[in-house]
Amino acid sequence: MAERIRLGMVGGGKDAFIGAVHRIAARIDGEYDLVAGALSSTPEKARDSGATLGLAPDRCYGDFREMAIREARLKDGIEAVAIVTPNHLHYPAAREFLKRGIHVICDKPLTSTLPDARKLAKLAADSDALFVLTHNYTGYPMVRQAREMVAQGELGQIRVVQVEYPQDWLTEAVETTGTNKQSEWRTDPARSGAGGAIGDIGTHAFNLACFVTGLTLDQLSADMQSFVEGRRVDDNCHVMLRFKGGARGMLWASQVAPGNENGLKIRVYGTQGGLEWAQEDPNRLWYTPFGEPKRLLTRGGAGARAVAARVSRTPGGHPEGYLEGFANIYAEAARAIRARQAGTPVPADVIYPTVQDGLLGVAFVDACVRSSAKGAAWVGLA
Amino acid sequence: MAERIRLGMVGGGKDAFIGAVHRIAARIDGEYDLVAGALSSTPEKARDSGATLGLAPDRCYGDFREMAIREARLKDGIEAVAIVTPNHLHYPAAREFLKRGIHVICDKPLTSTLPDARKLAKLAADSDALFVLTHNYTGYPMVRQAREMVAQGELGQIRVVQVEYPQDWLTEAVETTGTNKQSEWRTDPARSGAGGAIGDIGTHAFNLACFVTGLTLDQLSADMQSFVEGRRVDDNCHVMLRFKGGARGMLWASQVAPGNENGLKIRVYGTQGGLEWAQEDPNRLWYTPFGEPKRLLTRGGAGARAVAARVSRTPGGHPEGYLEGFANIYAEAARAIRARQAGTPVPADVIYPTVQDGLLGVAFVDACVRSSAKGAAWVGLA
Amino acid sequence: MAERIRLGMVGGGKDAFIGAVHRIAARIDGEYDLVAGALSSTPEKARDSGATLGLAPDRCYGDFREMAIREARLKDGIEAVAIVTPNHLHYPAAREFLKRGIHVICDKPLTSTLPDARKLAKLAADSDALFVLTHNYTGYPMVRQAREMVAQGELGQIRVVQVEYPQDWLTEAVETTGTNKQSEWRTDPARSGAGGAIGDIGTHAFNLACFVTGLTLDQLSADMQSFVEGRRVDDNCHVMLRFKGGARGMLWASQVAPGNENGLKIRVYGTQGGLEWAQEDPNRLWYTPFGEPKRLLTRGGAGARAVAARVSRTPGGHPEGYLEGFANIYAEAARAIRARQAGTPVPADVIYPTVQDGLLGVAFVDACVRSSAKGAAWVGLA
Amino acid sequence: MAERIRLGMVGGGKDAFIGAVHRIAARIDGEYDLVAGALSSTPEKARDSGATLGLAPDRCYGDFREMAIREARLKDGIEAVAIVTPNHLHYPAAREFLKRGIHVICDKPLTSTLPDARKLAKLAADSDALFVLTHNYTGYPMVRQAREMVAQGELGQIRVVQVEYPQDWLTEAVETTGTNKQSEWRTDPARSGAGGAIGDIGTHAFNLACFVTGLTLDQLSADMQSFVEGRRVDDNCHVMLRFKGGARGMLWASQVAPGNENGLKIRVYGTQGGLEWAQEDPNRLWYTPFGEPKRLLTRGGAGARAVAARVSRTPGGHPEGYLEGFANIYAEAARAIRARQAGTPVPADVIYPTVQDGLLGVAFVDACVRSSAKGAAWVGLA
Repeated sequence: MAERIRLGMVGGGKDAFIGAVHRIAARIDGEYDLVAGALSSTPEKARDSGATLGLAPDRCYGDFREMAIREARLKDGIEAVAIVTPNHLHYPAAREFLKRGIHVICDKPLTSTLPDARKLAKLAADSDALFVLTHNYTGYPMVRQAREMVAQGELGQIRVVQVEYPQDWLTEAVETTGTNKQSEWRTDPARSGAGGAIGDIGTHAFNLACFVTGLTLDQLSADMQSFVEGRRVDDNCHVMLRFKGGARGMLWASQVAPGNENGLKIRVYGTQGGLEWAQEDPNRLWYTPFGEPKRLLTRGGAGARAVAARVSRTPGGHPEGYLEGFANIYAEAARAIRARQAGTPVPADVIYPTVQDGLLGVAFVDACVRSSAKGAAWVGLA
Repeated sequence: MAERIRLGMVGGGKDAFIGAVHRIAARIDGEYDLVAGALSSTPEKARDSGATLGLAPDRCYGDFREMAIREARLKDGIEAVAIVTPNHLHYPAAREFLKRGIHVICDKPLTSTLPDARKLAKLAADSDALFVLTHNYTGYPMVRQAREMVAQGELGQIRVVQVEYPQDWLTEAVETTGTNKQSEWRTDPARSGAGGAIGDIGTHAFNLACFVTGLTLDQLSADMQSFVEGRRVDDNCHVMLRFKGGARGMLWASQVAPGNENGLKIRVYGTQGGLEWAQEDPNRLWYTPFGEPKRLLTRGGAGARAVAARVSRTPGGHPEGYLEGFANIYAEAARAIRARQAGTPVPADVIYPTVQDGLLGVAFVDACVRSSAKGAAWVGLA
Repeated sequence: MAERIRLGMVGGGKDAFIGAVHRIAARIDGEYDLVAGALSSTPEKARDSGATLGLAPDRCYGDFREMAIREARLKDGIEAVAIVTPNHLHYPAAREFLKRGIHVICDKPLTSTLPDARKLAKLAADSDALFVLTHNYTGYPMVRQAREMVAQGELGQIRVVQVEYPQDWLTEAVETTGTNKQSEWRTDPARSGAGGAIGDIGTHAFNLACFVTGLTLDQLSADMQSFVEGRRVDDNCHVMLRFKGGARGMLWASQVAPGNENGLKIRVYGTQGGLEWAQEDPNRLWYTPFGEPKRLLTRGGAGARAVAARVSRTPGGHPEGYLEGFANIYAEAARAIRARQAGTPVPADVIYPTVQDGLLGVAFVDACVRSSAKGAAWVGLA
Repeated sequence: MAERIRLGMVGGGKDAFIGAVHRIAARIDGEYDLVAGALSSTPEKARDSGATLGLAPDRCYGDFREMAIREARLKDGIEAVAIVTPNHLHYPAAREFLKRGIHVICDKPLTSTLPDARKLAKLAADSDALFVLTHNYTGYPMVRQAREMVAQGELGQIRVVQVEYPQDWLTEAVETTGTNKQSEWRTDPARSGAGGAIGDIGTHAFNLACFVTGLTLDQLSADMQSFVEGRRVDDNCHVMLRFKGGARGMLWASQVAPGNENGLKIRVYGTQGGLEWAQEDPNRLWYTPFGEPKRLLTRGGAGARAVAARVSRTPGGHPEGYLEGFANIYAEAARAIRARQAGTPVPADVIYPTVQDGLLGVAFVDACVRSSAKGAAWVGLA
């Protein structure tokens, strides 16, 4: 095994859900060592958080720009950085690292605005460094198998896509209680972007639909609501989708649906068969060849394919979950980074969400907001 | 027990799925005797079918008008008639019986056209006879409980309704094979109406959403497709719903979704809780009071209420199904008919779908067709 | 359709759960007319119950012997009788009808004692009348399909059978509260027999295991408990099974398992595959050919076979339940009765539980009781 | 964060399923660094495997005794060792480390023989070093919650325990094909012990039953089979359990049940309620207070308690799996090791399976083998 990749982190201090997830994801396969961080926006907190994580004091920064500058100069400076801040900081933070050739692993959505997304996409295209977006649900083995099955024509021509992502944690106005940091920035357009639910989870749903089906969106019609009084962003979104080539779909994202924890689910129907996958039961993929009984394909078990097996760590019946799926994005990134370091091409089977996927996601949010503002008019991606 | 109600049937000869269902539904509780029929449009076939069902030869008619005329004159003529023909005959058949004071139990959708629906609604309003529409899914005990729970405010104010009805039996062009009678008339606009999937099953979904939530539709936006080449009606429909009072919803009806048999499902979310019910697992109702664990309410078991128990025949764990739910419509109709016969008011707890529900359903189909033709414009019910 | 079969009923007055079930089962397919009854052990109550059911006053009897004698003499007397009394009366009641050539449809278990069961088996063998035992779970279409799949060798040689039947309604001592008639006689050895849970539901489980697998029991070892203080019969039973030919099994019957309503479930494993079926989800049968993905076979849908289709009334996705399964026993009995009346052989595909199955069930209860009394010693059926 | 704990590993070279699992489990929370290993029984292979894992060449040993001796002398030698060899080596390997004060994390079952287990238990008791047994299923958050709910009396007095662990991977004689290393040693009594399925997975089931209920076994009656011709150990086991205090149970372990991947499942029933948990759906715990609807308690969601939250890494709806549960054993071990290193008491809430649990497991296997040899006689643990 090669040396571990030296990783830095921007954001992800105490109380930050997603920072801890990235750290575990980076650790599971032993491919990364977290050695530096700008974990918080205040220097003192940043140092505290760094100490808790075992970072050396001189690798704890109060500012991501300072971190980028210094780490780029260190002989054993970071080779990659994970950006896990609120959305509006993704662009400025990523910029500092990309332009110094440090690989970026960035949380989704790509940015909080479409102009930022475009600038970042350009930056990434121009940089030698890799840009990896953690649309983590594409890391689930059975999602990858679903994608392959569609690509290989086992469902025939795709006609209908049903994708949904209901949650319930914003059913009440928790963002006003002062007790829930997550809800505060995620419902603040200045930090989160114009999309609330649509940006936070709708982008995941849209990304998953595109990833699995390989389809390209043509137009959408969105009806977005803010059910909780005083909420500044949408908390429930209904979207009708028209894909190029004739397939149609529906997308539902909600954060006000009591009884739903993290209910991302996709169903794809073609001329020859159907597929169903749900994030809360990720080791199973339902497959129905038209006219035959439903089959339950299990990760690691009968019906699982090489594409799923390659990103699995345990045999069938030993459930893998969210963290393993997330770790697969990190593992794929590691393979790409090592190839780049070795000066060899990135292996053809490496799959991770790119800055282009991220740009598409931000354009999707933008289109939903535009459509909804025009009474659910059909609009294309800008 | 009073004498059984003398029942006639129009349509429902050999090979007719829904006729047999009505007959079983009428038999389960022993409230009806089938004594006459115009079971087929050709006299000979009508007689054959009648003989198979044990009807006396002189009560087998080749024409529903002849049947209405003669039965109305008989001393022991039919008291009620079940109309189970293709949709375009519902109106002319119902007319003959209603105007002679014979109670009508009619399959859905009410009619194949909106003008017919309006005429029938007027006729029914003016008739002494009862008109019962078999939107049978409202007969399921746990659907009735769901309705009551919403009505009693246990979900708080309703925000979101997700309803869907996917099937897969029209994935291929079976209507052209000459082997599937059902598919022939159901995809023929002259017999079925302008709506295909939306009329056949979308109306059920819409009816269920209204029944459970008590909400009134304000506007809808529909995107309908005909995926199978040469098909003359829609086979997949995406609809966004706006209800009066601010609730929003999505409705999906499809007959081209492989792996779905009869997947009617409804989910309702309010400020204080959520409900989920699926037709293929009808004895169970999921209920989540916001912030508490999900609860599995079972027909006949813990969590079932009087409103469900009243229309149940077996204890918890002894599954009841489609036929029992259908039979509940017949049972409620019997209670209403007996009250009418006795000259007493229909008991307040009798629930069955009315001609107004049917008119609403046909208006819904009409609105979907209009909306879709205008590129999914928002339209109200005409 | 031929004339309906004239049916009488012994037991099944008000408050009797199983009597109502038999009546619905007899009605669903329109094959029987209930015309006489000895519905209760007191003449007055018998008449009241009869009136409620629409029986003519002179066909309501206070005594089953009187009923048998008189009905046998009537020109239009009953052709068959349903016996739905507590267990200890099955034998004396059946005897009166069998010896007069009236077909008997009898609830399970066959009798409350093994000597009675043997006498009844002999009587039935010597009678021209048919004897049908309502081990109703064998009427479920997918149970029949499971049986056929095993018989046709699709699972290879059977190795392991897991069958269970948990309920929770006797978790507390309801039989002492005076509010639950069912619990009173079912926990009274004089009326129910020596077995409590093992007789009431364990016999169903055992019957189902034999029906599906076609195996013959060699020996069993039973550990029975009476968990509720003061209860006179077992309420929880653990049994290990050894079948002839080497297959092994476990059987669990319980009436004190909170959260279980009517959880009859069977799993069968052979050298080439496995099957799973659960009574509360009866339209589905899981089938796993060894080394391949699990398949969900659905009644009326893909994967269902002729043997299941023949006893189905609705297409896939339209759930059938307990009453339809029960009705299938009545429908099969009707076919046999009509054949007998016509003097033709009973069709080869008619399947119903026989007096021999019933004798086996009572012998099973007897063996369990004997084994448990000897500290779970291995015993064969007497 | 303190320095990582220096970890060694015995066994777990290439192709070893469980070694990789232990390594991931040790990495997830960043508490351990793997720095030494005797990964294989041949020196060359050991070095190869070590190199693949990034171990320094001088920390790769061909022999666990050599490793124990040298590491104990190194200033930065290992502080803990993971033993993941076939069962018969657990005792000799653990002995070398325990007697040198190196903490041991050992795979289950404790040993291949009861005498070894007793010797190891004594050694562990006499050692300053900790001994942690990876009965990993006790690491699942909802298993811990189940245990707490039982302990706090929420189910009332426990009456019935149903535990099962079916798999299907030994349905055929894979151990004779030369292609499946796992099956070779696991069906070899010399390496695995006298128990096959009962030792490999039955011990997990027994451990889980004891862990959740807190009950102590009194006697058992076991009927064990070897269905595959030529197999030298059991591949299917039926066991009836009698616990002290009157509770009863059944345990089924099988490796020949097609369609089962890793189906560990436990159901516990008491006077006031029931619980159900299945390893393949580990984030959910079903709880039924008697007489109320079933509730679905979810890890991280509504109904989860502090005892589950403490060992969770993600919010509700973000599934955790087998590796996270396994990692919880490592995390608990780390807390205990750090306390020991600090000279402070191990925190009261640290929970991990001990050498005594392991001894109980081996005694359980021994008792099953003895019982089965005597025709399923009741026996106690030796």
